[in-house]
Amino acid sequence: MSKKIVLSGSRPTGNIHLGNYFGALENWVRLQDDYNCYFFIADWHALTTGYDDTKDLYKNTVSLMADFLASGLDPNKATLFLQSLVSPHAELYLLLGMNTPLSWLERCPTYKDMMANMTEKDIATYGFLGYPVLQAADILMYKADYVPVGEDQIPHLEMTREIARRFNYLYESAIFPEPQPLLTKSKVLPGTDGRKMSKSYGNTIALADTPDEVSQKVMSMITDPARIRKDDPGHPEVCTVFAFHKVFSEDEVSDIEEQCRKGTIGCVACKRKLQARMARFHTPIYEKRQKLLEDESGLLDIIRDGSRKASEAAERTIEEVRKAVRIGI
Amino acid sequence: MSKKIVLSGSRPTGNIHLGNYFGALENWVRLQDDYNCYFFIADWHALTTGYDDTKDLYKNTVSLMADFLASGLDPNKATLFLQSLVSPHAELYLLLGMNTPLSWLERCPTYKDMMANMTEKDIATYGFLGYPVLQAADILMYKADYVPVGEDQIPHLEMTREIARRFNYLYESAIFPEPQPLLTKSKVLPGTDGRKMSKSYGNTIALADTPDEVSQKVMSMITDPARIRKDDPGHPEVCTVFAFHKVFSEDEVSDIEEQCRKGTIGCVACKRKLQARMARFHTPIYEKRQKLLEDESGLLDIIRDGSRKASEAAERTIEEVRKAVRIGI
Repeated sequence: MSKKIVLSGSRPTGNIHLGNYFGALENWVRLQDDYNCYFFIADWHALTTGYDDTKDLYKNTVSLMADFLASGLDPNKATLFLQSLVSPHAELYLLLGMNTPLSWLERCPTYKDMMANMTEKDIATYGFLGYPVLQAADILMYKADYVPVGEDQIPHLEMTREIARRFNYLYESAIFPEPQPLLTKSKVLPGTDGRKMSKSYGNTIALADTPDEVSQKVMSMITDPARIRKDDPGHPEVCTVFAFHKVFSEDEVSDIEEQCRKGTIGCVACKRKLQARMARFHTPIYEKRQKLLEDESGLLDIIRDGSRKASEAAERTIEEVRKAVRIGI
Repeated sequence: MSKKIVLSGSRPTGNIHLGNYFGALENWVRLQDDYNCYFFIADWHALTTGYDDTKDLYKNTVSLMADFLASGLDPNKATLFLQSLVSPHAELYLLLGMNTPLSWLERCPTYKDMMANMTEKDIATYGFLGYPVLQAADILMYKADYVPVGEDQIPHLEMTREIARRFNYLYESAIFPEPQPLLTKSKVLPGTDGRKMSKSYGNTIALADTPDEVSQKVMSMITDPARIRKDDPGHPEVCTVFAFHKVFSEDEVSDIEEQCRKGTIGCVACKRKLQARMARFHTPIYEKRQKLLEDESGLLDIIRDGSRKASEAAERTIEEVRKAVRIGI
């Protein structure tokens, strides 16, 4: 039996941080062994909110591929591609848009949310309204069986499923399977200040950070504010450093918790421990990343090869779609 | 100096009738001698309102090319192509849509009009809202200097101009010239019942009608209802047959008018005259059309060749656009 198909993508909006890594990439790396995976750099999607500032798009694209590979994605296992190099995505977006009711798009929760919150720039554009259609095109192009998502993205995937159903119904076809969510429990890492890790909060640790920067960021993490002296009993549940230990020091996290609560380990010592643990995880990825970036044309080749491979699958699907719609000659 | 560029298109929604012919095609045939012309079959546009009924799309596409050629368009003079065979149109539509404000589309007069009037089918789709973006992509793709339009289409062209300006401004480029309207006074022909000629009124005369059908349609035209007997004085200004004589019998239209007003020519004789005149115009086009349709694969070749030629120009533009947007690698 052939492997089930998985698709996911990431926007090239800057360096992957540990929140992204544990939220998605780490899982992708696992999936590439068991599924026929398509992972892509969603550069057209980046335009939906960033159309007016594209100066870093190229740099971010190359760097995201370095993040992919350094994290363990393997172009011999998964198809790693750049969306804008696979032009049938644009055609499928156009064709699916023809029969997507505006009301579906207008009621999309993320759309309403972002329209209300992104007041600093004008995102009320045709492209932004249509990004769920583009997303549907991305997913349906490869007839994905599964899309790895977090709980919050289930409504989006439901829209893709509705778009697939509507297409199949209108054109009496069975081209598109309805993709299922692949829910994975991912490790949750806060930002260095204890809030959600997010570039807009300036509290991230990126794969691209140097080992020194990572060490410094660990050292500046906020711990239990109630702990004044080293031997005061601590409250790990409110401590950012402890949240990181839960991810990076699984084998001794219960010891650390006990020592913290008893006041037998100080915050500085606890941070030193975390620095060592994080270095063990981060430094090899960082070094691999640096090495990859030294050979930019090698990275470009990987992007082009993967995109060519994706294009072959995409051409097959778009040809079926044209036939079903009865467009063209 | 190189020729100025002209672009226009027509939806493959059925057979070209004389209203379309005199409203557009006749003019296109003139333009192909003086301009670098791109005339296309807008099959993606046909989906904006007809996505749910595409069974005749292929037939209408082939037949529209026969109408083009029978009317005198010449693939050696103009680039005649099929929109869906030139996939960069979809990519440009996507890219232009990213920075097209929704408000521009929502205030488009035709959009508001059709949303209010087309109650029998659901056209409130993403694709229908975006057809001015697709239209802009079609025009800007070839950097058209002129678009032959009627007065009523000037707002649409203005939207294309705004989209071009916004793109040039955002991406500090000078890729897109702002296309100008090429206003032409075209002959106005009513339908056989005196109302506007329109397929939805069932009052058309099509290039595809047989000579017999045309004769019958002339015979059934509504004349001056106040004229009961042959020698009653007539009122040519209310007579459909006379409106046709103004187009088809230019050299004797004043004689006909005089005879009608004096009651010296009867309506039947007047219709016989028109039948002869129309046959002289219509039969050669009809016969050429029939001959073309006998060789379907020849028509397909013409469509493919023209679309290949268009694709070369389109590829050049889309490459410039990608560079300006700084998308891709």
